Formats: sequence, structure tokens, C-alpha cells
Amino acid sequence: MKVKVAINGYGTIGKRVADAVSLQGDMEVVGVTKTRPDFEARMGAEKYSLYAAIPDRVEAFENAGIKVEGTIEDLLEKADIVVDCSPGKVGAENKPLYEKAGVKAIFQGGEKAHIAEASFSALANYDDAVGKNFVRVVSCNTTGLARVLSILKDMYSLKKVRATMIRRVVDPKEDKKGLVNGIMPDPVKLPSHHAEDVKTVLPDVNIVTTAFKVPTTLMHLHSIAVEIDGDVNPDDVIARFEEEPRIMLFSKEEGFTSTAKIIEFAREYRLRYDLFENAVWRESINFHDGELYITQAIHQEAIVVPENIDAIRAMFELADKWESIKKTNRTLGIV
Amino acid sequence: MKVKVAINGYGTIGKRVADAVSLQGDMEVVGVTKTRPDFEARMGAEKYSLYAAIPDRVEAFENAGIKVEGTIEDLLEKADIVVDCSPGKVGAENKPLYEKAGVKAIFQGGEKAHIAEASFSALANYDDAVGKNFVRVVSCNTTGLARVLSILKDMYSLKKVRATMIRRVVDPKEDKKGLVNGIMPDPVKLPSHHAEDVKTVLPDVNIVTTAFKVPTTLMHLHSIAVEIDGDVNPDDVIARFEEEPRIMLFSKEEGFTSTAKIIEFAREYRLRYDLFENAVWRESINFHDGELYITQAIHQEAIVVPENIDAIRAMFELADKWESIKKTNRTLGIV
Amino acid sequence: MKVKVAINGYGTIGKRVADAVSLQGDMEVVGVTKTRPDFEARMGAEKYSLYAAIPDRVEAFENAGIKVEGTIEDLLEKADIVVDCSPGKVGAENKPLYEKAGVKAIFQGGEKAHIAEASFSALANYDDAVGKNFVRVVSCNTTGLARVLSILKDMYSLKKVRATMIRRVVDPKEDKKGLVNGIMPDPVKLPSHHAEDVKTVLPDVNIVTTAFKVPTTLMHLHSIAVEIDGDVNPDDVIARFEEEPRIMLFSKEEGFTSTAKIIEFAREYRLRYDLFENAVWRESINFHDGELYITQAIHQEAIVVPENIDAIRAMFELADKWESIKKTNRTLGIV
Amino acid sequence: MKVKVAINGYGTIGKRVADAVSLQGDMEVVGVTKTRPDFEARMGAEKYSLYAAIPDRVEAFENAGIKVEGTIEDLLEKADIVVDCSPGKVGAENKPLYEKAGVKAIFQGGEKAHIAEASFSALANYDDAVGKNFVRVVSCNTTGLARVLSILKDMYSLKKVRATMIRRVVDPKEDKKGLVNGIMPDPVKLPSHHAEDVKTVLPDVNIVTTAFKVPTTLMHLHSIAVEIDGDVNPDDVIARFEEEPRIMLFSKEEGFTSTAKIIEFAREYRLRYDLFENAVWRESINFHDGELYITQAIHQEAIVVPENIDAIRAMFELADKWESIKKTNRTLGIV
Ligand SMILES: NC(=O)c1ccc[n+]([C@@H]2O[C@H](COP(=O)([O-])OP(=O)(O)OC[C@H]3O[C@@H](n4cnc5c(N)ncnc54)[C@H](O)[C@@H]3O)[C@@H](O)[C@H]2O)c1
Ligand SMILES: NC(=O)c1ccc[n+]([C@@H]2O[C@H](COP(=O)([O-])OP(=O)(O)OC[C@H]3O[C@@H](n4cnc5c(N)ncnc54)[C@H](O)[C@@H]3O)[C@@H](O)[C@H]2O)c1
Ligand SMILES: NC(=O)c1ccc[n+]([C@@H]2O[C@H](COP(=O)([O-])OP(=O)(O)OC[C@H]3O[C@@H](n4cnc5c(N)ncnc54)[C@H](O)[C@@H]3O)[C@@H](O)[C@H]2O)c1
Ligand SMILES: NC(=O)c1ccc[n+]([C@@H]2O[C@H](COP(=O)([O-])OP(=O)(O)OC[C@H]3O[C@@H](n4cnc5c(N)ncnc54)[C@H](O)[C@@H]3O)[C@@H](O)[C@H]2O)c1
Repeated sequence: MKVKVAINGYGTIGKRVADAVSLQGDMEVVGVTKTRPDFEARMGAEKYSLYAAIPDRVEAFENAGIKVEGTIEDLLEKADIVVDCSPGKVGAENKPLYEKAGVKAIFQGGEKAHIAEASFSALANYDDAVGKNFVRVVSCNTTGLARVLSILKDMYSLKKVRATMIRRVVDPKEDKKGLVNGIMPDPVKLPSHHAEDVKTVLPDVNIVTTAFKVPTTLMHLHSIAVEIDGDVNPDDVIARFEEEPRIMLFSKEEGFTSTAKIIEFAREYRLRYDLFENAVWRESINFHDGELYITQAIHQEAIVVPENIDAIRAMFELADKWESIKKTNRTLGIV
Repeated sequence: MKVKVAINGYGTIGKRVADAVSLQGDMEVVGVTKTRPDFEARMGAEKYSLYAAIPDRVEAFENAGIKVEGTIEDLLEKADIVVDCSPGKVGAENKPLYEKAGVKAIFQGGEKAHIAEASFSALANYDDAVGKNFVRVVSCNTTGLARVLSILKDMYSLKKVRATMIRRVVDPKEDKKGLVNGIMPDPVKLPSHHAEDVKTVLPDVNIVTTAFKVPTTLMHLHSIAVEIDGDVNPDDVIARFEEEPRIMLFSKEEGFTSTAKIIEFAREYRLRYDLFENAVWRESINFHDGELYITQAIHQEAIVVPENIDAIRAMFELADKWESIKKTNRTLGIV
Repeated sequence: MKVKVAINGYGTIGKRVADAVSLQGDMEVVGVTKTRPDFEARMGAEKYSLYAAIPDRVEAFENAGIKVEGTIEDLLEKADIVVDCSPGKVGAENKPLYEKAGVKAIFQGGEKAHIAEASFSALANYDDAVGKNFVRVVSCNTTGLARVLSILKDMYSLKKVRATMIRRVVDPKEDKKGLVNGIMPDPVKLPSHHAEDVKTVLPDVNIVTTAFKVPTTLMHLHSIAVEIDGDVNPDDVIARFEEEPRIMLFSKEEGFTSTAKIIEFAREYRLRYDLFENAVWRESINFHDGELYITQAIHQEAIVVPENIDAIRAMFELADKWESIKKTNRTLGIV
Repeated sequence: MKVKVAINGYGTIGKRVADAVSLQGDMEVVGVTKTRPDFEARMGAEKYSLYAAIPDRVEAFENAGIKVEGTIEDLLEKADIVVDCSPGKVGAENKPLYEKAGVKAIFQGGEKAHIAEASFSALANYDDAVGKNFVRVVSCNTTGLARVLSILKDMYSLKKVRATMIRRVVDPKEDKKGLVNGIMPDPVKLPSHHAEDVKTVLPDVNIVTTAFKVPTTLMHLHSIAVEIDGDVNPDDVIARFEEEPRIMLFSKEEGFTSTAKIIEFAREYRLRYDLFENAVWRESINFHDGELYITQAIHQEAIVVPENIDAIRAMFELADKWESIKKTNRTLGIV
């Protein structure tokens, strides 16, 4: 018996999670929802059973010639779990629906941590989600940091982590919002809340963060410095990262001079150029005056996808941590 | 016996043409070349036999741990035809090599028209390339215009075509060149040379063009107005475009408000989000005061790929026009 | 006695109109308004008497330590005319206030034409505003077209004007809205409404327009082709444009390769780099196959400023057309 | 007797230094140079005596109708000091000319430190330039860091400074180079060389830096964290910054949400919107877990201008540190 998964909100994250669920042997998509009958809805309806996220919109879909099978409430009846991929803060509004329907639910990083029993990032704290009913997969930025730090904290005694996040201002599909020419400190008041979010999955890591938005759509970039007790040989870090499938190393020497080049690489191998892995610059890894330096780029649209799959497994106790991670990696082509 | 195709210059166009050739039953890739041992070279070597485009660089590839099978001259010995995908103007420098090796050659739109016996755009003038030794596939912008105009000139008597091209300043992988904040008339002197390029494949079309560069990487956009003798029902144009696989209609009503949305769509269906089709806005098609208006977006990286395949077939007389076009369409998923 | 001018909405247009009014001998600024106590409000309060555009916000200004003299209603009591520079469509909401206060009013191009008794562009139709109570200064794009066309129609018999507008997506100060990477047809349905707007000031000109938004902040660009009865010597056009102070010629040969270079020039001479003039590329002016080609860039933030001044003079019959235009030009440094 | 100043390279920095010199009572511009007869040359010739930076180009200027008074060598004969504002690395090529002519010279931050007897940043190390013949004004980024750190090191015992620089990829006038959509680590290997540059003027400060380029033209942004021995009250830092004219505080609360808003402010007060001051976000100043956080934006085109003036005074011993700084501030409107 496969776990029946509903996707509420077939947008940037929702469509990727749906496709990833479909690739698993132990779970299946029973339906996806959209609020408006646009081209994303039409694509969703071609691949999956489509439901109206907002009940009174059924007619709008029909007028647009897009078949809907019912409303979100109908869908929840068929599901064991719903992955809420609605816009930030909207998940909180949707939660009562899920409680009423008696289904488990996963929320995304746009929601506050207290929406769920546990925040989640597979490498960092898989076990915290085991058996839970409400889990929140942390944001793209937090996922990127949590992966690297959960590895480093197993290797070294981390004194303090400092990370500056240079964020893509909007996703590639966005054409109304933005920042066209400028740099935006966000938040202006420092340090930023991102550090607190990392601690929801890695409570023992001493981390401070700052964050800025810049006019690009492709990837976030993190400049990380980890103060470490004792000495570090960068080659050990490189070797360990090479072993971890969810981290991919890129070398400037090979022409990876910017996020534009990393995406050019991803376009060759993955539909939607989805880079589920942290993209770490090999030459950036250096130990200097007690601190380990790392620069990584994060494909915000894709990085949380494997985490959503692992979270489902943990919540239904379908597999233990490494068994789940390996299955997810294999099915998504993360090697 | 398959036609043996060499690709000289495994970059943006070269890698796409190589993959497209591989999908055909009547031709095969015997090797690709690169000038430098960067990540594109490594990817090329994984899929194809790699040769050094510049003979004395063989060592550089070896030092980088990328296997090369020889030089361009070695490759030409194995090939029946070379598709030159080197940067603009470099094809002209390469031509003597091809003549010496006695292979046929296709050049791209970055070369002057007189480099070849015929310029080529499949819908417009397939037959001009039949049996030829040197053919030039016209540029991405010209291909986009030629497709639409070759259809329209069969439907109507075209008096004068006016097209304004709003061009993406660089391809997505580029990170050194650009225009960050501004609009650049290019050329400043009007009208632009693009009209002359269209006439190399559609000599009877009376066309004038203007062209501008803007800070985006995804697609070019063409604003076309066709002065027509007689009356036009836009629905006829829409119906005819719907029949032509190399033209795809996009509707604002479905959420296609910009090139960003069109690419978001392509990311769902095609590796590298390659849109081999002209992307025409359905609602833009309108007849007003004697002129037919059309707005289309052109995915510059992909649009010439089917044309290169058809050109090979024409040059070796492997198929007639519609047989070739249909084969190419079917293998590339153009429906 | 100077005409007493109130500025309702001290934003991009409002602050420029206020400064321009201050430079005239026959009018003066009696106050400006803002809705929120931000830095633009503080700058406004330093130079002018500041009033709250929304009555119940007075306290917010006081809390922020910015002195306000009262509300918009208080300001209107002191004014002979209000220049409404509120955001598009808001002018229509404000109009009843002005009627109640019995003051004349000027609206900007973001309002529908029927808000006023006449639309206005100084070179095109100064006399239409003479003595009127409600006048609308046409938009930045329309002003740019109207200037060039009002000159050309005096020189030649214009058969048909075709203009493609490549628009800056947002003003430089904007950091929430935008289009980061893409091109947006706006409107998608063609031709665009801009042609109708031109006809509000040049009713006899046969014009069609198309318009697109691109990710830049500096200037709009217009690609214009004017079908003309008879022959045109481009040098005559250049000579005439050189005589007209509100048109400035820029030459590619001198390094003006894009709007970025034009703004670099303007930064040397004008505060806020305000280019009140149409920036026409000299080399773009060409006559080809019955059509006169012109490429111009429009500094959207500045171009309507002289028009607002002239409109005030016309409405109060302070000067006739050329007397007003000359005064405005001289005081604003337009030579 | 005024010090006679030649400007070699009338570009972004050169034109600003020339204007700043002109505003001083104790120095004057005897001439400026350009390599090509473009619009910047024409503007230079209107304000100053223009010379050809490359001797055999005199004719090119004449052909373009721009009057030149001679070559750089002629100019050096008239000068007591030359401010070299040629592109990075070119200053080193020019140095022999200056030595031959026996004039003092100032170089800019694009040159290596060893080109001069001392690197210079007025607040940090004015006295190091006193009486010297060759001085290098440090780069825009280093100037921004040096100002803030020279103040902080007088207030506190600084243990370690960490700074991440998010750099505008090109200046506003540039339209050929760039990065259109992406983020570029530059350098990839960490930490970056900028820290060493800071130490040329503040040798005792323990600093590490990382740097990235992003697609914007307006300003650089620095995210700074200063580890401090002892406790810090952020209000003390704010109070001290408020006293220092070369630092300007900007508040998010007033609407300064990004560099776009800061430039909008500068456009109101300064020609070319030159912000000679560090733009520090007031709300960013915070002390957290032993570290003082500061976010600042740097107008790269303008920030080194006052430093060049002070360097001239130091080299000719025209004034002591604070006397010079005060004169420079007063004349440039830095309050
Ligand atoms: N895009 C990213 O980079 C990214 C990365 C990690 C996490 N997230 C988080 O994922 C969540 C989804 O973001 P996204 O980028 O996919 O957004 P999106 O806007 O692309 O998709 C959201 C989808 O939700 C639908 N929706 C809107 N209102 C809804 C409602 N009331 N109920 C159900 N569905 C509704 C919309 O139709 C849309 O399809 C957010 O919490 C976001 O913070 C986004
Ligand atoms: N990119 C586009 O949008 C586009 C669209 C249509 C046509 N074209 C045309 O296609 C051609 C290739 O352009 P591209 O965008 O693929 O360029 P590219 O820079 O992406 O690729 C060019 C490749 O040629 C190789 N090369 C360089 N020098 C060479 C030499 N001397 N001999 C052989 N190979 C060499 C480079 O290693 C590189 O891999 C040009 O003529 C261009 O005008 C480009
Ligand atoms: N910015 C341009 O490029 C441009 C060019 C030509 C014409 N216009 C037109 O000028 C008008 C103003 O545009 P802008 O760019 O200056 O906008 P803006 O947003 O820069 O300024 C608008 C100002 O109006 C104020 N405001 C908001 N609500 C108000 C209200 N109810 N009453 C009074 N004031 C209010 C705001 O505080 C703000 O200061 C619009 O009609 C616009 O279409 C703008
Ligand atoms: N632009 C900035 O943001 C910035 C900030 C701080 C320091 N700098 C430094 O200032 C220096 C000048 O940079 P810029 O931005 O003003 O460059 P720029 O390109 O704007 O100006 C350089 C000028 O030098 C002239 N020139 C070229 N070759 C020359 C030669 N051989 N001799 C004399 N003049 C020559 C050019 O005509 C041009 O006018 C560089 O060292 C740069 O690193 C630049």
C-alpha cells in the first residue's frame, strides 16, 4: 500500500514535489490543487488529478476548459497526507482544513516554525519527524545551511558559524515583483532570523546570519565562515563533501565562475534544471585563521524537494533515515 | 549508412545540434570539438568523442583529465559533414580546413551569407540546400521571422513587413559580457541588416527591421506588422499557426504574460528548456488598418536546431522537404 | 501676482514639477503633499510647506518628526491651481476635492483622458489648454511621441506613423515591483492604446503603436517609422531637430551607444540627471523606402515637467504658446 | 600659489576629481586627458584644458572637432602633481612618464599597492602621505571599510573584522561588460585580497573579507561584523557616526529599503548623485554575541573623491589631517 499524497498548491515547489513523489515506490500522488486556471493548472491537470484549492473557483476552471475533479476538501478525503505548497503564510490558513480532514500535513519554509510539531531537514534531524502528524520542511536557505553544517558538526567542534546570504530576489517565472537595479538588506536589522530557523533543525549550532536580496532569479548564494576548535585540513572537508550526494562540488578551474554557469550545467542533466544538491565551490573551501570558508549556491526551486520526500517517509515510518535518503537520492538522480 | 556528422564548437548551439543529430535515424555524431578543457568540454566528452578544435591544445585537455581523441583534422577525416558551431566570424576562418578535408559544411548565422552556397531556413527554402556542399543556417532572429513569413506569404499577398526585434543581450550562461541597466539600439543606423538576412531565404519578401538589445537572457522578442493586400481574418492566421508544429501559440489569458512565463512552461517539457518553436502570443494576432500584428518570442539557443538537422538532410538528399521536417519534428518532440 | 500652485503627491513627478514651478517668475509653490512620512516627505518639508495628502495621517508625520502645515484641504484653500501628481488612477479620486475647493487642476498621464477638458502637450496643442480648468498632461511616452510628430507634421505630409515602445519597467527608486529577467508585451493585444493617447493631442495623426516592458530603470526607447508622402532628406529633419530645444541629438560616434550613456551625459549637467528633452539618435534618422526612421530615448521621470509648466501658463493665460515655451526652456536650462 | 593638478584619464573617477579640485582654494586643474574623442572628452574640453593621453591621437580629437591643447607630456610640464585616473593597471604603465617629468603622482585603487610610497585613506592614515611623491588612494571598497574601521578602532579594541562585499558588477555608464542574471564569487578562493588592501592603510586591524559581484550598477554593499573585546552600546556607535561627516546614516523606517532608495536621495542633492559618504543603515548597527554588525552601501563612483583631495594636501603639506579633511568636506558639501 502506497502512501497517498495530496499536493495543495501546484506552483514552483508543488509541481516538483508532485513529480518527486511519483518517482517513489512507496508513495503516490492522488491529486494536486490550483487556485486559478492558468497554464500551471493545465499542466497539472495533464499529469495529475486536479482539484480547486478554493472551492468556489471550480467554475472558473471549467470555463477555461480545464477539468477539475473536485475541491481541496474532496482531495483530502482521498489522501493520507497533504503537502502544503501554498504561498508563504497561507499554509497556516489551510491547517484547520487538514486537521478537520484528519490527514497528516507537511508545510514549507514560508510558514512559521510553530505551525508544526517539528521542523525538518533530512541530514540534520530526520528522526525528529518520525511518526509526527505536522512537519515543516525548512526554507531553501535553511536547507542549504543545514546540510553543510550537519556534516561539519560531525567532523569538527564548531564554535560559531557566520553566514551571509545573497538571495535571488524572485523566482524565474515571476514578472510582476522584483528589484531591478539595487541591493536590498532584508532584514535591515541584524542579525537576520535565518539563524533561528537553522536552529529549529540543528539546535546546538551557534550561528548568526545576515541576508540581502539582489536582482537575479537563478540561485541564492551563501558565504559561510565556520569558526572551528582545532585545525582543519580543507582536503578533508572536500573529501567528505564528495561522499555526500546532496552536495555537489563545482570548480572555478572548470569554468564555474558564477551561478549562471552552474545553472548552465544543471540544464544538461535535469528537467527544469533542478539542482537538488548544494552547489559548493571547491576552491572556496579554505581554512584561514581558525575559520573554515565555504561558498555555496542554492537552487531555491529544487533544494527542498528531496527533503519533502524524506519527511513523508519519516512521518509514516516507511524507512529509517539513511534508507530513506538513499531511496530519495536514487530516484531523483542525486549521486 | 548513416551520415557521419562532426560538430566543430561544442557550445550553446553545438551541444544542441549534437543531441538532435543523435536522435535521428539517418545520421550520427562522430565527434565534437572544444577549444578549452572546461565543464562544457567534460560534458561533451561524456556523451561524444571529443577532439581539440585547436590542435596545440590537446595537452591542455589531458592535463585537465579530459580525454580527447585527436584534433579537428582527425575528426574531419571521419566525417561526411561538419556543422560549424564556432563563435560568429570564426566559421569563416575554419572553412579552408573543411575544404581541404573535402567534407560538406554547415555554418551558423554568425557568419556572413557569402560563406556558403545557400542560406537556409527549412520552411522558407529547403530546396535551395539540396545537394549543396556549403550551407548557412540563418540566425535565430532570422529563423524566427522566416518561419512566420513563409507561412503568411502562402496565405496572403504581403506588401511590406516591418519588424522590431527586442533582443536578449547575452545567453544565460554568459557572465562577463552584458548590458546591466539600459537599452541599446543595435545597430543605431536604421533600418537594420536583419532584413537583408531574411531575404537570403525569402528573397521576395519586402521587409524592413530595427533591432535593440535589452538586459535579459531568456528570449528575443519580435514585434511584427505585416502590411497585406486585402483583408485578413486573424482567426485564419491562428488556425494556420496551430497547424504548423514549428509555431506554438501562447495565451495571455492562460498566464503567459512575458518571456519569463514561456520559459517556465518550456522547463516542464524539454531538457535545457529548449523551445524549438516560435512562441507566438495568440492575443497579439490582430488585423488593424491593413496590417497584421504578431508578437513572438524566440528561444535563441534552440530555434535553429531543427533547421540544422533539415539542412543536413537536404545537403545529402536524404529526404524531401516535408519528409525531413516531419522526421525532425517527431524526433525532437515538436508537435 | 504669481499663480499659486499646490502639488498633490510629492513623488517622482511631483518633486520635479515643484522645483520647476519655483524657477518661474510668474508662479510659485504654496505647498506640496505626501501620504507617508518617508524620506521624500522629509525632503519635501525642507524645501516647501508640507501638507498631509490624507487628512488622518497628520499624526503619523508628527510622530516621525516631520512638520506638516495641515491637510490637502487646507492647502487647496491657498492655491489657484493644483498639479495632481498622485499615482495613476488616484487623480480621478482626488478630482471631487478640487472641484469642491474651486481650484483649477492639472492631471498626469496615469489618468484617463476624459478626466479633463483637454489633454496637453506643449508643442502639439498648447492652445487647447488656454483658459481651461481641468487639463491632463499626457504620459511620458505620449509626450515623447507628440513632440517629434508635431514637428514632422509641420514639415511633411504624414501618411502613417508606426511606433514601438520599449519601456523601462519601473523607475529607479522602485525596489518592490519589477521584471527581473524577461520581456513583457504590454499590452499583449495589439495595437496598443498609446496611439489613442497621442491622438488626444494630435488628432490628425494616423498612428499605431506597440509596447513592451524590459528590465531597466533609466529610460524608455521608441523605435519610430513615419510613412511620408513624398521625399525626405534626413538632413532636413536633423536640422529642424537641432533647432528645437526640447529635442536633443545624440551621436553613436561620440559614444552614445545606449540609454546608459545618455544618462551618464545627463548626470553631468542636471540635478537628478533630468533630461527634459527627447534624446534622439542622430544616426538613426534615415529615410528608406518611403519611411522616416527615428530612434529616441525618453527620460520618463523628467520629460513631462516642462509640459506641466506650460499647461499652467495656458490655463491662466499668462503667456501665449511660444512665449511660455521659451520661458520654460530658459528657466529649466533647455537650450 | 595654488598647486597645479593634472588629471590623467578623464573618466568616472577623473571627472569627479577634476571638479573637486576646482572647488578648492589651494589647488587648481591645469588640464585633463582623454584617450578617445568621445562625449566624455567633449565635456572635459568644455570645462578644462584637454590633452591627448596618447600622443598619436591628437589628430583623432581634431577630426572630431574637439580641441586639444597638446599631449600628456605637455600637460605634465605645467603640473605640480598628476592624479592618474586611468583604468586599473594602466597607472603602472604611466608611472615612468611621471617620474621623467619630475611630478608627484597619485594613483587609484586599481593599481597594486607597491606602485606608491604609501597607500592612503584620509581618516585612516593621512600622515603616511605627508611629503610623499607617490601615493595610492585605496579602492572604493577599501575606502568604505577603512573609514568605518578607523573610527571603531579608536572607540574599541577590535579583535577581528569580517566583511562580505556585495559588489555592483559595472558602473552605470558601462554597456558592454556585465553579469546580467547571476551571482559571481570574485575571487572564488577565500578569503579575498580586499583584507590585505585594508591593511595597507590600517595595518593593525585583523580583518578577513569575501567578495561577490551582482547585477546592479548603483552601489556596493558591505555586511560587516566586528568582533570586539568588551561590551558595545550600539547607540554610542550611532552617535559617533553621526558626528563624522564622511558617514551618513540612513534609516529603513524613513523608506531607505535598498541602494535604489539611497541613490534616489542622493539625486536630490548632488550633481551626478555623488555620495561621497559611506551610507550606513542605522537599524543595522547592533551588538550581538560579542560582535558589532553594520551594513553600509558605498557609491563607488564618488567615495574616493574627497580622499584624492586630501592626498594632494598631504603630499604638498598644505594642511594637517583635520584641517584638510574639514576643507574638503566643506567644499564638497559633506556635512
Ligand atoms: N520558490 C522558492 O524558492 C521556495 C523555496 C523553498 C520554500 N518555498 C516555500 O514554498 C511555499 C510555496 O512557494 P512557491 O514558490 O511554490 O509558491 P508559488 O507561488 O509558485 O506556488 C504557490 C501555489 O499555491 C497556490 N495557492 C495560492 N493560494 C492557495 C491556497 N489558499 N491554498 C492552496 N494553494 C494556494 C497557487 O495557485 C500556486 O500554484 C512557500 O511557503 C514558500 O515560502 C519556496
Ligand atoms: N547563442 C545563440 O543564441 C545563437 C543562436 C543562433 C545562432 N548562433 C550562432 O551560432 C554560432 C555559435 O554560437 P554559440 O552561441 O553556440 O557560441 P558559444 O560561444 O556558446 O560556442 C562556441 C563554441 O565554439 C568553440 N570555439 C571557439 N573557437 C573555435 C574555433 N576556432 N574552432 C572551433 N570551435 C571553436 C568554443 O569552445 C565554444 O564551445 C555563432 O555563429 C552564432 O552566431 C548563436
Ligand atoms: N514616473 C514616471 O515615469 C511618470 C512619467 C509620466 C507621468 N507619470 C504619471 O505621474 C503620476 C505620478 O506618478 P509618479 O511616478 O510620480 O508616482 P510616485 O509613486 O513616485 O508618486 C506619487 C505620489 O503621490 C502620493 N500619493 C499617493 N496617494 C495619494 C493620494 N491619494 N493623494 C495624493 N497623493 C497621493 C504618494 O505619496 C507619492 O508621493 C501618475 O499619474 C503617473 O502615471 C509618471
Ligand atoms: N569606477 C569605480 O567604481 C572606481 C572606484 C574607485 C577606484 N577606481 C579606480 O580608478 C581608476 C579609474 O577607473 P574609472 O572607473 O574612472 O575608469 P574609466 O574607464 O571610467 O576611466 C578611465 C579613463 O582613463 C582613460 N585612459 C585609458 N587609457 C589611458 C592611458 N593609457 N593613459 C591615460 N588615460 C587613459 C580613458 O580614456 C578613461 O577616460 C582605476 O584604477 C579604478 O580601479 C574606480
